[in-house]
Amino acid sequence: MRAERQDPELDRQLAVMREGSVDFYGEAELRERLAACRAQGRGLRVKLGMDPSAPDLHLGHTVVLGKLRQLQDLGHTAILLVGDFTARIGDPSGRRKTRPALRVEEVRRNAATYVDQAGLVIDAPRAEVRFNSEWMERMTSDDVVRLCSHYTVARLLERDDFAKRYAAGEPISVHEFLYPFVQAYDSVALRADVELGGTDQTFNLLMGREIQRAYGQAPQAVITVPLLVGTDGREKMSKSLGNAIGITEPPEEIYGRVMSISDALMLGWYDLLAAGEWADLRSERERLGSGSGEPLRFKQALARRLVERFHGTEAAERAEAHFHRVVRGREAPDEIPERRLAAGASGDRGLLEVLVELGFAASHGEARRLVVQRAVAIDDAVVDDAALRLGRGVYRIRAGKRRFARAEIG
Amino acid sequence: MRAERQDPELDRQLAVMREGSVDFYGEAELRERLAACRAQGRGLRVKLGMDPSAPDLHLGHTVVLGKLRQLQDLGHTAILLVGDFTARIGDPSGRRKTRPALRVEEVRRNAATYVDQAGLVIDAPRAEVRFNSEWMERMTSDDVVRLCSHYTVARLLERDDFAKRYAAGEPISVHEFLYPFVQAYDSVALRADVELGGTDQTFNLLMGREIQRAYGQAPQAVITVPLLVGTDGREKMSKSLGNAIGITEPPEEIYGRVMSISDALMLGWYDLLAAGEWADLRSERERLGSGSGEPLRFKQALARRLVERFHGTEAAERAEAHFHRVVRGREAPDEIPERRLAAGASGDRGLLEVLVELGFAASHGEARRLVVQRAVAIDDAVVDDAALRLGRGVYRIRAGKRRFARAEIG
Repeated sequence: MRAERQDPELDRQLAVMREGSVDFYGEAELRERLAACRAQGRGLRVKLGMDPSAPDLHLGHTVVLGKLRQLQDLGHTAILLVGDFTARIGDPSGRRKTRPALRVEEVRRNAATYVDQAGLVIDAPRAEVRFNSEWMERMTSDDVVRLCSHYTVARLLERDDFAKRYAAGEPISVHEFLYPFVQAYDSVALRADVELGGTDQTFNLLMGREIQRAYGQAPQAVITVPLLVGTDGREKMSKSLGNAIGITEPPEEIYGRVMSISDALMLGWYDLLAAGEWADLRSERERLGSGSGEPLRFKQALARRLVERFHGTEAAERAEAHFHRVVRGREAPDEIPERRLAAGASGDRGLLEVLVELGFAASHGEARRLVVQRAVAIDDAVVDDAALRLGRGVYRIRAGKRRFARAEIG
Repeated sequence: MRAERQDPELDRQLAVMREGSVDFYGEAELRERLAACRAQGRGLRVKLGMDPSAPDLHLGHTVVLGKLRQLQDLGHTAILLVGDFTARIGDPSGRRKTRPALRVEEVRRNAATYVDQAGLVIDAPRAEVRFNSEWMERMTSDDVVRLCSHYTVARLLERDDFAKRYAAGEPISVHEFLYPFVQAYDSVALRADVELGGTDQTFNLLMGREIQRAYGQAPQAVITVPLLVGTDGREKMSKSLGNAIGITEPPEEIYGRVMSISDALMLGWYDLLAAGEWADLRSERERLGSGSGEPLRFKQALARRLVERFHGTEAAERAEAHFHRVVRGREAPDEIPERRLAAGASGDRGLLEVLVELGFAASHGEARRLVVQRAVAIDDAVVDDAALRLGRGVYRIRAGKRRFARAEIG
């Protein structure tokens, strides 16, 4: 009866699912369900929600898509769930500009764009693309009341963003409380066996488990993946923070921007973006983790693999050649003028005045604009803090594409 | 243009509306609207919500019905709103037994019962009886989301009952947050000009104003009336507290129970229950308020008027005669045995031991049961506190219908 308990394929699959995840809720139940599915010759239904208001994918999105592809490779069904019901309503009170209502055509167009781009990571033709308006539009007001009876106000107020806004006295409209129910109910409508998401989605994904239970379904397993840190090395990758690399950006751009990240960030990116591939880089990754190895070569490999993934091998070769010819070429020490700047009274200098003194900007105002436009880099890292102060030391400073200096402050 | 400002009829009507109310929100706007209605020869639409889960009316309900009748007398349209949508859903999570779902037939039957009984106070045939399922069933899930966008979580959590439950860590299901929206939206659907309610409904009634504004309607005026204190002289009248007099109780019962209330409570009841009638009792009411007058005669008049209101003049005469013959007759001093009881060490005696010593009960346990069953009265007032202590003095004590004593403690 319980022969499946010895099935090594089950262990292998669960290990793949677990790999690189942060949390895996309901793993034990999923094992049983997986065994049952295998006995019936069908795959698990794996849900991934997408936000149709932000169709341009960046590397951050590809972490969870990589996990979804791994599950597809195990023979399971990927479901891309488009939250068009909520996107079309947006914020009906008109109070928050961050959630504008989208028109039907816009949602469809965004979803198509999303699927196209997701197809660079997953096997899109085999994925099921669903829109939650399909069931939400059929829901009556009674149904909504019943749905909302299955969760408490106090628990919703524990959700991180709600908790912060409530504590800060910022208004939360009651309709915002309805959206997590919609997202959770989507799992009921889809009969999801597994839902994937970033760790910032944990609350909603777990709510899906409870709402499934309330509707008499076995709860989905929930697998969360880490959030990718952006090129700044600090914040979660996000288009609005300017620290994102879009996967449809030109190959040269992707390559160059990956090359600009710190070595520490590079290792984190490898771990989250490999998605079960790039096995040949693994031993070098381990060497680097223990302090040896060649970071520069590894970063080149990472940049090349990522461009390959989104644009193909040829584009990756071109991007790499371009980088060596143009970017690294112009940074060669013999081409960069050396400058000495006196440290200020406090032993350091403000970035803006340094830019002016180097002749990279005519005024503090112009220098600030360069920083804000992310046109200034120090030691290959873009600097976006106009208040930055530089202590004694040597810096390779770049402004725009043509101005370079090796500045020694002190 | 603004000739209506001098219209004395407007002042008279607003004075009638204000009379005996606790709060009157939107009075100034209502004056304008009333003037416009008069110019168009139509009345105001006056909404009163009823709870179809509790169709048996008691004196407490008749306070607001009296106010509604006064508005009918001024030529306005009474609307009895039956909240059948919510009553039929009840508590869908099944967690709270206090709100069981009602079946359609049950709601209709309860509503009919309610209207029959309300007809003892208002002009029922002229009232509009509406069921909110009429518009709520047509509402889509989109509509519900939009409705809920017009009020914040924080403000709902300020509602007294929610605030207490939230503070006490008691669960509030999110669907409970939807019900005040439904109640408020009813005012939109009915295009209510005025909504009446007890002071415990203030939050919901004012929310109606906001939701009307959100839907582009001028907000209703809100008139709240005080809550009637029950026969115990302490708590709001409520069937579940056992301190209520149902308006369909037998005439003798109503008469006798009104006679049993305290003199102070009697004055409060007169004020809330007169509803613009009983003008001939007004001067005696004022005398009593300043400490003179004859409380017993006034209480008889109040008891008689209330029975008249609900059962007619003949029934009131019969009830009065019955009271004099049976109730007061058996309390005549010459029929009541006189007993002397020693005051205890503390100068008083516990009620239960007094009942035992008088031979009214064989044990403390039996004495306690009598009290709990509300079978014990002291000086015509029912006593329900088994821990009561009686100080030195003379008391007329009754237990059940047959045992009386004039007991002197001291």
